[in-house]
Amino acid sequence: MEFTVRAAKPEDCKDVCRMIMELAIYEKMQDQVKISHKELEQDGFCANPFFQCLIAEVPELHKSKEGHTKVGYALYFYTYSTWKGRSVYMEDLYVMPEFRGKGIGKALMSKVAVVGKEQQCIRMNFSVLDWNTPSLDFYLAKGAQDLTASEGWHFLRFDGEALDKLAEEAPKN
Amino acid sequence: MEFTVRAAKPEDCKDVCRMIMELAIYEKMQDQVKISHKELEQDGFCANPFFQCLIAEVPELHKSKEGHTKVGYALYFYTYSTWKGRSVYMEDLYVMPEFRGKGIGKALMSKVAVVGKEQQCIRMNFSVLDWNTPSLDFYLAKGAQDLTASEGWHFLRFDGEALDKLAEEAPKN
Repeated sequence: MEFTVRAAKPEDCKDVCRMIMELAIYEKMQDQVKISHKELEQDGFCANPFFQCLIAEVPELHKSKEGHTKVGYALYFYTYSTWKGRSVYMEDLYVMPEFRGKGIGKALMSKVAVVGKEQQCIRMNFSVLDWNTPSLDFYLAKGAQDLTASEGWHFLRFDGEALDKLAEEAPKN
Repeated sequence: MEFTVRAAKPEDCKDVCRMIMELAIYEKMQDQVKISHKELEQDGFCANPFFQCLIAEVPELHKSKEGHTKVGYALYFYTYSTWKGRSVYMEDLYVMPEFRGKGIGKALMSKVAVVGKEQQCIRMNFSVLDWNTPSLDFYLAKGAQDLTASEGWHFLRFDGEALDKLAEEAPKN
């Protein structure tokens, strides 16, 4: 199927927001989504954007049952390894179910790799849920390493009251 | 013990580089460190820096056996959650062994939380090795959640040839 991959524009944020929710439903975590397209517009298209995004688009002719032509996205940002330097982190990779198996996910992911390499990134990192074996298998088959399995890295977080308390206890100097 | 926590300056990069290596030795991964202080200077102090860093410093009077007054650091950058928005990621938190147990690590971590909250981040994320129980216990006692344990998130990576191959296969459009 014919499709194109291009950088997202502010006017794509409504579709990105729709697909973020579709991905969260697939991950069984839709109750955690609190983002709006306005917030995405503000955070992704400011002077120092917090993220960048690629959109996969099909021609009108191949639009989805509901009439969508924007059928996938990859959202990423730059991170840093104190061992190896510049890295790119792919936060989300999503393709609508009826458009899977056509190379769109692979194309999005490859484009993130290209953009990362253009910025001299030596790594592309991302996270996957352990029960999501179709995705895990897809990534491992493409040569990804599972650092949690091989080295024992665990992902930790402070949020809500724990984050507030931590900030309150900071030295005042 | 008296100490201060302040934003790193370019001239701190030699000490940060020294402590990055000390931390990697503790993590038994020193062979993976390929960073130089020049690279840190370039990537952390450019127009759109790839990271930010805090330094913990003690007065001359309390310098280390080897004569160091810069005795700890926290290195962080901004990331993005498509469910919740702006986040801060603490890549490294380190205090030299002879200065531990004095609240320096806690102060560095709290300052990252403060800076993150000033930027409207709602989360502070980081990674810990599963065998590093002193650190895991320290973070969990402060209210951190282990998302790998509770939700099953695995950390994956493309690098080297796998990343090159991925980039080569990107669509040309």
